Amino acid sequence: MKAEIIAVGTELLLGQIVNTNATFLAEEFANVGIDMYYQSVVGDNEARLEELLSLAESRSDLVILCGGLGPTKDDLTKQVVAKHVGKSLVQDPKGYQKLVDFFAKRNQEMTENNLLQALIIEGAVPLENETGLAVGMLYVDEETQTNYLLFPGPPNELKPMVYHHALPLIAKQFLQKDHLISRVLRFYGIGESRLVTELADLIENQTNPTVAPYAKPNEVTLRLTVKTDSKEWGNTQLDQLEQKILDQVGDYFYGYGDQNSLAKVVVEQLKHTQQTIAVAESLTSGLVQATFGEIPGVSEIFKGGVVVYDAKMKQDLLDIPKELLEKEGTVSEICAREMARNIRIRSNSDYGLSLTGVAGPDKLEGKEVGTVYIGLSTPSRTLVQEFYFPRDRQSIRQNAVMAAFDLVRKELLRK
Amino acid sequence: MKAEIIAVGTELLLGQIVNTNATFLAEEFANVGIDMYYQSVVGDNEARLEELLSLAESRSDLVILCGGLGPTKDDLTKQVVAKHVGKSLVQDPKGYQKLVDFFAKRNQEMTENNLLQALIIEGAVPLENETGLAVGMLYVDEETQTNYLLFPGPPNELKPMVYHHALPLIAKQFLQKDHLISRVLRFYGIGESRLVTELADLIENQTNPTVAPYAKPNEVTLRLTVKTDSKEWGNTQLDQLEQKILDQVGDYFYGYGDQNSLAKVVVEQLKHTQQTIAVAESLTSGLVQATFGEIPGVSEIFKGGVVVYDAKMKQDLLDIPKELLEKEGTVSEICAREMARNIRIRSNSDYGLSLTGVAGPDKLEGKEVGTVYIGLSTPSRTLVQEFYFPRDRQSIRQNAVMAAFDLVRKELLRK
Repeated sequence: MKAEIIAVGTELLLGQIVNTNATFLAEEFANVGIDMYYQSVVGDNEARLEELLSLAESRSDLVILCGGLGPTKDDLTKQVVAKHVGKSLVQDPKGYQKLVDFFAKRNQEMTENNLLQALIIEGAVPLENETGLAVGMLYVDEETQTNYLLFPGPPNELKPMVYHHALPLIAKQFLQKDHLISRVLRFYGIGESRLVTELADLIENQTNPTVAPYAKPNEVTLRLTVKTDSKEWGNTQLDQLEQKILDQVGDYFYGYGDQNSLAKVVVEQLKHTQQTIAVAESLTSGLVQATFGEIPGVSEIFKGGVVVYDAKMKQDLLDIPKELLEKEGTVSEICAREMARNIRIRSNSDYGLSLTGVAGPDKLEGKEVGTVYIGLSTPSRTLVQEFYFPRDRQSIRQNAVMAAFDLVRKELLRK
Repeated sequence: MKAEIIAVGTELLLGQIVNTNATFLAEEFANVGIDMYYQSVVGDNEARLEELLSLAESRSDLVILCGGLGPTKDDLTKQVVAKHVGKSLVQDPKGYQKLVDFFAKRNQEMTENNLLQALIIEGAVPLENETGLAVGMLYVDEETQTNYLLFPGPPNELKPMVYHHALPLIAKQFLQKDHLISRVLRFYGIGESRLVTELADLIENQTNPTVAPYAKPNEVTLRLTVKTDSKEWGNTQLDQLEQKILDQVGDYFYGYGDQNSLAKVVVEQLKHTQQTIAVAESLTSGLVQATFGEIPGVSEIFKGGVVVYDAKMKQDLLDIPKELLEKEGTVSEICAREMARNIRIRSNSDYGLSLTGVAGPDKLEGKEVGTVYIGLSTPSRTLVQEFYFPRDRQSIRQNAVMAAFDLVRKELLRK
């Protein structure tokens, strides 16, 4: 089944917002084995959307549209698709009831234009919008054998609709016996080009399963994918391939999965050993702690910490002697060591993590922009590593955060 | 001049990376007055790219391609464009010299495939790549009067090439006397739909200048754009329109510009009055401080603070009495008040900002997920505001950060 994505919205065309919906849809539909051949963006313009629909119909079996299902004048996606397939729009009773309830609950009057959101193409299967009001739909044009999926534009409405309603429906109606099983391996500390060079043989000579590398910010992932009608056979193939990969670059491997991260791995490790951590940050200014805070349930292992951006704060909040800071500098191995040890003690945690360095734009204490010291104080020792990330301010901070989580991860693995 | 963007890369088609290049190119070219009608994504596939080029040639005057200029086998953009326009590829001497120097400096041998990066379409104007090796180009097909711009895919190579080489060239070769002047106004605390309703007359009846609203995460921007051959006349039009807008929704206006933010406005305010701030965060776990840390030069006014994620940390780092926390709860007005006051005093800052609340997934101390207290201690008083953001964990944290910056901004305006 050949598919393509059409994102509708002038704000996309003018570059006012990033087309993350296309990325999301592409990945989710590719994951269930639907072949993606094109993505397009078109403005809120009837004639150009119609033109694109004709083109899509001629080259794809499944046309996935997102955006333009709302109540305002520039929302015209379903109107144009309905016209294109020669159908009228009819009311979806469930969607209509939801609208009525929504406004009643808020004691607001429902303006006429809101009713648009409950209309679907005659003969379409409605797709429930769990987090919004505009109903989505699947319409199958029997004449041309083209399938149209229509989704709302806001990502928080689109995603539940895709996960809970569209993908199950698609799986039931269209997918053959063969399906894809994927596994994502994550690597830190090795660049994409080196990883690809190391694994060149594996990447080039594999046909089923396949290996696809992707560079993410400061890390690389490998997606292993096997096409099979047997889950067991498929998983054995992936296991064998994974083993070959880890034999070569296992030193850099840290975890599985699309949604995983170094921070999540560290949180799991600490939960497993029921230990706690606190953080003292200078150049990263709270970024390590904010990254911990993104993870639900992190309070079990993460206590908090300090942001000692100012030199005086290092004295006041962490009791680092003024003389030491003046002699050694705030960007120094010994300062990182003191920060890590003191935050561990002050917070009564098992681990104390610290970061100090120069994020730029200017040199600090004669140290180059990009110089970073990361300290880790454990129940048995305190270690400090020096890094050099000669990049821009945001990249230096991001690199330092990743390096800090990796340092903790490796230390926890030593046990 | 009608333009469209074609991003080339299977990784985009499969949703492995977000197509931020299209967003960037769309915005930059729209800003100089080039009309954007389509964006497409196509994989690293010769036949489908060729098909798309034929379509683009039939509907656009300027075809902007990005991606596929590198040295590997799947990089085929310039090869396909060259074939499409019936030209061969020739070496760009400057690009070749850069390659030679690059490898010489690193004492590495240059493999044959690298030479591909210095090839351009015969007759094209090369565009220098300041941060990479693959040369870009502008090729004008005299026969069809179609212009092709070819850019590398990595954003850090694409952006300097566009800013320093492509846009100046385009301005010289193609743009008429009329050009666009834009101004972006930023609003916080009003939703897009309400803003649009309030300004309905202005938005609908303006033709030159125009008003375009865009919803960003937790804020809304309005872009005012005037088409003119007189900078002075254009700016007067924008001034008048801005005044009309601010008469209606000025209460929510906080600043100008595409790259601005509430945090940057607060930093400017504090720099102006030469005052300092420190922060105590609970539910946001360092996110306010990390947001400060993104801004170069922030150390002048931002001292740092604490992340008191754990209840005990609120006692240990901020000396909030255990009894008070037990009686009132950590998610309470009085806790926010104590946090703000104590971090101000401990850090010897002019302002102390605090955030405590429930980010979820579970209720805390009987308080609903989304409940947030934000405190601000100033030299003359301490105020606390209660908020309720019934959303998911990440949104609650983001909303709280924005609300905190807005609270500081408004307090600083009172003077």
